[in-house]
Amino acid sequence: MLDFSIDNIPFGIFSTPKTNKRLATILGSTVVDLLWIAKSGYLDDLEIPASVFAQPYLNDFIALGKDKTNAVRERLQEILVNVDQMPISVCFPVETVQLHMPIKIGDYTDFYSSEPHATNVGKMFRDPSNALLPNWKHLPVAYHGRASSIFVSGTNFHRPKGQVRPNDNEPPIFRPTKGLDIELEMATVIGKANPIGDSIDVNQAENYVFGFMLFNDWSARDIQKWEYVPLGPFLAKNFFSSVSPWVVTIEALEPFKVPAEPQDPAVLPYLQQNNRYNFDVQLEVTLIPAPTANTPQPEATTICKSNFKHLYWTVSQQIAHHTVNGCNLNVGDVLASGTISGQAADSFGSLLELTWGGKNPIVLPDGSTRTFLEDGDTIIIKGFAQKDNISINFGQVETKILPTK
Amino acid sequence: MLDFSIDNIPFGIFSTPKTNKRLATILGSTVVDLLWIAKSGYLDDLEIPASVFAQPYLNDFIALGKDKTNAVRERLQEILVNVDQMPISVCFPVETVQLHMPIKIGDYTDFYSSEPHATNVGKMFRDPSNALLPNWKHLPVAYHGRASSIFVSGTNFHRPKGQVRPNDNEPPIFRPTKGLDIELEMATVIGKANPIGDSIDVNQAENYVFGFMLFNDWSARDIQKWEYVPLGPFLAKNFFSSVSPWVVTIEALEPFKVPAEPQDPAVLPYLQQNNRYNFDVQLEVTLIPAPTANTPQPEATTICKSNFKHLYWTVSQQIAHHTVNGCNLNVGDVLASGTISGQAADSFGSLLELTWGGKNPIVLPDGSTRTFLEDGDTIIIKGFAQKDNISINFGQVETKILPTK
Repeated sequence: MLDFSIDNIPFGIFSTPKTNKRLATILGSTVVDLLWIAKSGYLDDLEIPASVFAQPYLNDFIALGKDKTNAVRERLQEILVNVDQMPISVCFPVETVQLHMPIKIGDYTDFYSSEPHATNVGKMFRDPSNALLPNWKHLPVAYHGRASSIFVSGTNFHRPKGQVRPNDNEPPIFRPTKGLDIELEMATVIGKANPIGDSIDVNQAENYVFGFMLFNDWSARDIQKWEYVPLGPFLAKNFFSSVSPWVVTIEALEPFKVPAEPQDPAVLPYLQQNNRYNFDVQLEVTLIPAPTANTPQPEATTICKSNFKHLYWTVSQQIAHHTVNGCNLNVGDVLASGTISGQAADSFGSLLELTWGGKNPIVLPDGSTRTFLEDGDTIIIKGFAQKDNISINFGQVETKILPTK
Repeated sequence: MLDFSIDNIPFGIFSTPKTNKRLATILGSTVVDLLWIAKSGYLDDLEIPASVFAQPYLNDFIALGKDKTNAVRERLQEILVNVDQMPISVCFPVETVQLHMPIKIGDYTDFYSSEPHATNVGKMFRDPSNALLPNWKHLPVAYHGRASSIFVSGTNFHRPKGQVRPNDNEPPIFRPTKGLDIELEMATVIGKANPIGDSIDVNQAENYVFGFMLFNDWSARDIQKWEYVPLGPFLAKNFFSSVSPWVVTIEALEPFKVPAEPQDPAVLPYLQQNNRYNFDVQLEVTLIPAPTANTPQPEATTICKSNFKHLYWTVSQQIAHHTVNGCNLNVGDVLASGTISGQAADSFGSLLELTWGGKNPIVLPDGSTRTFLEDGDTIIIKGFAQKDNISINFGQVETKILPTK
């Protein structure tokens, strides 16, 4: 794993056997206790109650607003340059602490903003010559997802069961899913609320973003296929989602803004963003099968290399669209990007696409193949940005599939 | 409005100019301060911290579990028989207090469980001879909705704007919705959590229900039509939803259980409920147009009379389906029923159905007509159950449509 640089200073929640949950940052591979930093007077002039750093989630900290949270981050960059001089009692090797869900998520929305992904799915399930639906290039399609079942990296889940209809001429059956899939996504953490009835201007939208996490939107394709008409995915998605423990601020990603591809046809004025940009963050998905007697230490296989920049609809456009009807966003809400697939076949962000609906199974080093995931498989998503001397690490989200309960 | 009887004893949240938000019940039209009841020792043997009654939401109270909450309700039925003998300082005429959102909703799910409603929509938008989609009778179709924009009765909202495509041969346009509609629903309040990965047995599901509220799932049909493929409704729904302030417990509705109609085809075993039942709760929707110079006190028109019993999928089946994949429900989650339409044309729970897609406008006493709603219209949903000497009142949810901001 890449270390976390002084340019990064993400925020998260940790505990140790001796301390309750509280706020932290990470430098190198050292987790730093922010409650101690606050209580030691380093932040006194910022006038933030120390209790904010003793919370089990980042929400109260984020709700202080960007003036405060950016000031804290900049202060940490000053004082942690010499992290080695901090008292050992407030610095923890990351492997000795427990990292927790960083955000108490209010509402979770999932977008569908990568054109290659929407095109791939459309080709497979609808019309290959007319893959995108008519609305796709006019608005960032999205749906509401389940907040309660989003868990932090390291939390595993049991293969879900559900109703599927493998044969269109026979009644549906109930079974463990045979279509367990990943979706490689990024999650935007909302940093500022808009009141009900107010819209967020597309050119102000980035002020409403606190930061980003890696996101794995686990999906059960066979359940999805049967249930999703006419109201969208439900049990095929809400059994589990995984996020990385560190929230990387949008300010840390400033050097990695890259122009977004122009949109054609032109979008309606409320979606017209000046200087549309995405973030150049490299994303990588690896699969590690369960150990066996023959292969006690199975090799990790990189199954996808993608990039956060592959979005047709930018994060700012997503926020503007989400609120154009007056829908209110709250601090700690999460907007996921949708599966981020690039044009290249090895950049597709789901097994559905990587194996083209199962037609091209992935071959693993142990000789086994995958169309969808097997019990015991571990999926790791990593994210990092690098440019000149600046590197921003997102850490990882790692999840193992346990057998059906 | 019907009074609230001693058989009812619903729970809600109120405040006055002199008191913070706290828990209450209502008897007749008198709101009773439950914090005072607790502090006065009436509940001492139940061993509930008084602070539970000083919360701004019912969630902590509900989380005590049914043993405790039912004991409180029964105790209140004993001591409030003579509500007139309670100190005047803890009893408030309902018109003198502010009623608040009773629940801090975690996740909100909307079902689609009335067969006449799904059939009507299918006939209008798809195939009249084949109105129900193939999955409809095999599983209770549902989708996740927006929790943040659910507000209590008396909160009004501005007509939402959004992207619509009135002409299939032209690009979409942006405008205030011309298809503002109601959906008459009931909302189930979850009273007990299931851990992630665990399913709730259909025959145990009622133990996970705390109670019910009236629910108006406001919808913008023109926005919905353009946006909803392939992932379901989003901005057409999430601009606003309205609930009634009193949560009526499932125990209060015990006398109103009625057998549900048999299901054909047979459902899968996880949905097979012994003695399937619905609740016989009469529902009524009235519309009051804005006052004008000519009609300073416009008449209310009852536009729909329906009943909570018109559900093909019972609340227990909804809960069993929602969790069959291991999805976790939390205390304070809300499961709405979907629009509750009966067979009769005057029992349809939306204007879309009542006017049959605009073909049969509703004529109001002032001579004006409605296909969808106009600015200034007020919609009131009421609910009540009556049998022998027992009556259970749900109160009402009243909302006025303000002009676009």
